[in-house]
Amino acid sequence: MSQLRERRARLVTQFDTHKIEAALISGLPNIRYLAGFTGSNAQLLITRDSATLFTDPRYTVQAGEESDCRVRIVKRSLLPGVIGAIGRRQIRRLGIEPGRMSVETLALLEKDTKKLTFTALPPLVEQLRMLKSPEEIEAIRASVRTNSKAYAKALTRIKPTSSENDIAAEIEYWQRRYGASGVAFASIVAAGARSALPHAQPTSEPVGTGRLLLIDIGALQLGYCSDMTRVVHLGTPGTKAKKLYRAVLESQLAAIDAVKPGITAGQVDRVARKVLERHGLLKQFVHSTGHGLGLEIHEMPRLGRNDKTRLQAGMAITIEPGAYVEGFGGVRIEDTVLVTDHGCEILTPTPKELVVV
Amino acid sequence: MSQLRERRARLVTQFDTHKIEAALISGLPNIRYLAGFTGSNAQLLITRDSATLFTDPRYTVQAGEESDCRVRIVKRSLLPGVIGAIGRRQIRRLGIEPGRMSVETLALLEKDTKKLTFTALPPLVEQLRMLKSPEEIEAIRASVRTNSKAYAKALTRIKPTSSENDIAAEIEYWQRRYGASGVAFASIVAAGARSALPHAQPTSEPVGTGRLLLIDIGALQLGYCSDMTRVVHLGTPGTKAKKLYRAVLESQLAAIDAVKPGITAGQVDRVARKVLERHGLLKQFVHSTGHGLGLEIHEMPRLGRNDKTRLQAGMAITIEPGAYVEGFGGVRIEDTVLVTDHGCEILTPTPKELVVV
Repeated sequence: MSQLRERRARLVTQFDTHKIEAALISGLPNIRYLAGFTGSNAQLLITRDSATLFTDPRYTVQAGEESDCRVRIVKRSLLPGVIGAIGRRQIRRLGIEPGRMSVETLALLEKDTKKLTFTALPPLVEQLRMLKSPEEIEAIRASVRTNSKAYAKALTRIKPTSSENDIAAEIEYWQRRYGASGVAFASIVAAGARSALPHAQPTSEPVGTGRLLLIDIGALQLGYCSDMTRVVHLGTPGTKAKKLYRAVLESQLAAIDAVKPGITAGQVDRVARKVLERHGLLKQFVHSTGHGLGLEIHEMPRLGRNDKTRLQAGMAITIEPGAYVEGFGGVRIEDTVLVTDHGCEILTPTPKELVVV
Repeated sequence: MSQLRERRARLVTQFDTHKIEAALISGLPNIRYLAGFTGSNAQLLITRDSATLFTDPRYTVQAGEESDCRVRIVKRSLLPGVIGAIGRRQIRRLGIEPGRMSVETLALLEKDTKKLTFTALPPLVEQLRMLKSPEEIEAIRASVRTNSKAYAKALTRIKPTSSENDIAAEIEYWQRRYGASGVAFASIVAAGARSALPHAQPTSEPVGTGRLLLIDIGALQLGYCSDMTRVVHLGTPGTKAKKLYRAVLESQLAAIDAVKPGITAGQVDRVARKVLERHGLLKQFVHSTGHGLGLEIHEMPRLGRNDKTRLQAGMAITIEPGAYVEGFGGVRIEDTVLVTDHGCEILTPTPKELVVV
C-alpha cells in the first residue's frame, strides 16, 4: 500500500469514533499529506472506499501527476462539485475540519445539502502529521542542512553597512541555490533594539556595529520546513549582551536535554522557563519554547505552558527560548530537533557559541 | 483625520445597513488596512466609537508602534480577550467576516457569549480595499518597478544550464536588493512542457534550449504586491511557439484596451477570451483574465466570466490571459495596470516582444 493510501486508511479508522461516513479535508497541507497534491486550491472528500480530489482547471495536469486520488476538475467555486459528490454517494454524516474551513464555506455547504449532518472533527490529520515517516524526516534533514549552509555562507558577507534586507536577500539566495524551493516563513533579520521585537521584518537600515543581530530563518525543501535562529554580535560584545546570550543558551540546552519520549510539551517549556527565571528574565520570554514543524512551519505540538501532548519518537520540533530587552535587544537560539527513542537528535548543525561578526 | 481612522469610519457608516453594533475583523490584510498592524496573529474589534486590536505578547512593542488603535495583549488564544471586550461593551449584534473566520473560531465565540447575534457580513473591507489611495498606488508602483528591475537583471544571466530554481533564486535576490521585503507569491519559473502547467513550481532541472520559458513573479514592497508574467524563448523559436505567443499577446493587448471605468470585470474577460477563441485557443485558456491586487496578491475584483463588478478609477488589477498546450508549453503575458479616469495606465514597464535568450 502506498504511503498516501496508508495515511488515508489511518484517517478512515477513526470514522466510527466520530460517527461519520466521510470527511471533507479543506486544509491544503492536510490535502498534500493525504493526496500528494501541492496546488493552491483544493478540497478532498474521503469516504471508506474512495478519495476524490477537487481542484480547478489550472491544475488539471498537475493534479493527475501528483495525486493517486480520483481527480475532479471544477470551474469557479469547488463547492458545487463537492456537494454533487456528497449527494451521489448518499453521505449523511460528514466530518469537517473546523479550524481549516471558513464560516462562509460551511454556510454554502449547509445551504445546498439536505439531510446532511456536519461533525466538527478534532485535528485528526494534524495529529497524524505529528509523527514523521522516514521519508519526511529525510526531507526535514535536507531542509535543515540547506538552511544552515545558506546561513554560514551569508554570515561571511555581513558588513556594518549591510542592511537587514541585504542579509535576508543573501540568505534566501543561498537557500535556493542549495536546494530550497523557497522560504518556510518570512526571514527575520533584526539588528540592535529591533532584535527585541520577536517578529521584526527586515528593514533597509545598515545593521551597524556594537549591537546584537538576530537571524531567524527557514528553508522550504521537498515541501518541508526548517527553522533556526542564531544571534551574532556586530563588533565586540559588552557584558550585558554576553550575559543575555549565556542565559538564553543555558535555557535552550536545558530544554533540549529534557526532550525525550513521554515528557509533555508543557514540561519542556517549563524547563526552558525555569532557567530564564533564575536569570531574572522570565518576563522577557514572551513566547512559547517551540513548536512542531513539517509541511507547515507551525504544527502540533506547541511547546507552551499548557500543552499536555506527550512527545514521541518521530516528532520534529523546534526548541527556541528567547529573552527580549526593550530598547536594547533580544536573543533567541533555536534548533530543529527530532525526538528519538531515548532522547533527541539536534538536526541543526550550526554552532551555538556567540559569534562576533 | 488619519488614513486609518478614515478607513474605519467608512466601515462604520455601513453598520446600520447590516444592523450591527460592532464588527470583528479577522482577516490579517483587513486588519493591516484598518489598523496598520502587520503581525501574524490579531483580531480587531470595531465599534462606532472605538477600535481595539488584540494580539499576543510577541507583538507588544510592534503593535504599539504600528497601530493607532487601543492595543490589548492576550496570552495564548485571543478569543477570551475578544469575548471579554464584547461583554464589557454590551454588544448584542456583531458583524463577522465569514470568509476570514474559521468554523472553529465562530463556535468558540458562540459558546462563550450570551445574547449575541452574529451577522455574516459581505466582504466590506475587501470592497473598500478595491479603490486604492494615492499612497497605496505609490507603493504598488514601487513594487512593480522593483519586480521589473529584478526580472531584467536576472534575464541577462540565464544560460541553458541554469535551473528553474537558479533563475528564481536570482530574481528573488534582486527583488530584495532593489527594495522588496520578499515575494508576493511563490515564483513560477517553468521551461518547455512544464510551462503548460499554469502554476508549476521551479525544479532543479536545467532549462535547456529550443523551448519556451515562463516566468511569473511578484515583489512585496511597502506591504504591496506586484505581479508580472513574461515568456521568453530559449534559443530560436519555431512557428508554433511564435504563433502561440502572438495570439496571447493580441489577447492581452485587446483586454488592456478594454479596461476603463464603467466596464465590468466580466466584459474585460470576454474580450481576452474572444481573441483566443479566434485563434482556436479557447480551451487552452484555463483561468480568468486577471484579478485585483494590493495588500494581497489576489483581491477583488476577479476578472472572470461572471464578475459584474464595474471597474473604477483607482483599482489596481492584473491582465494576464494565457494559453497552455499540454506536452508543448504555455504562454501567459501579464501586466499590473491601474484603472484611470479615461482608461488605464500599464504600470509594468517591461517590454512584451518575444525575447530570445
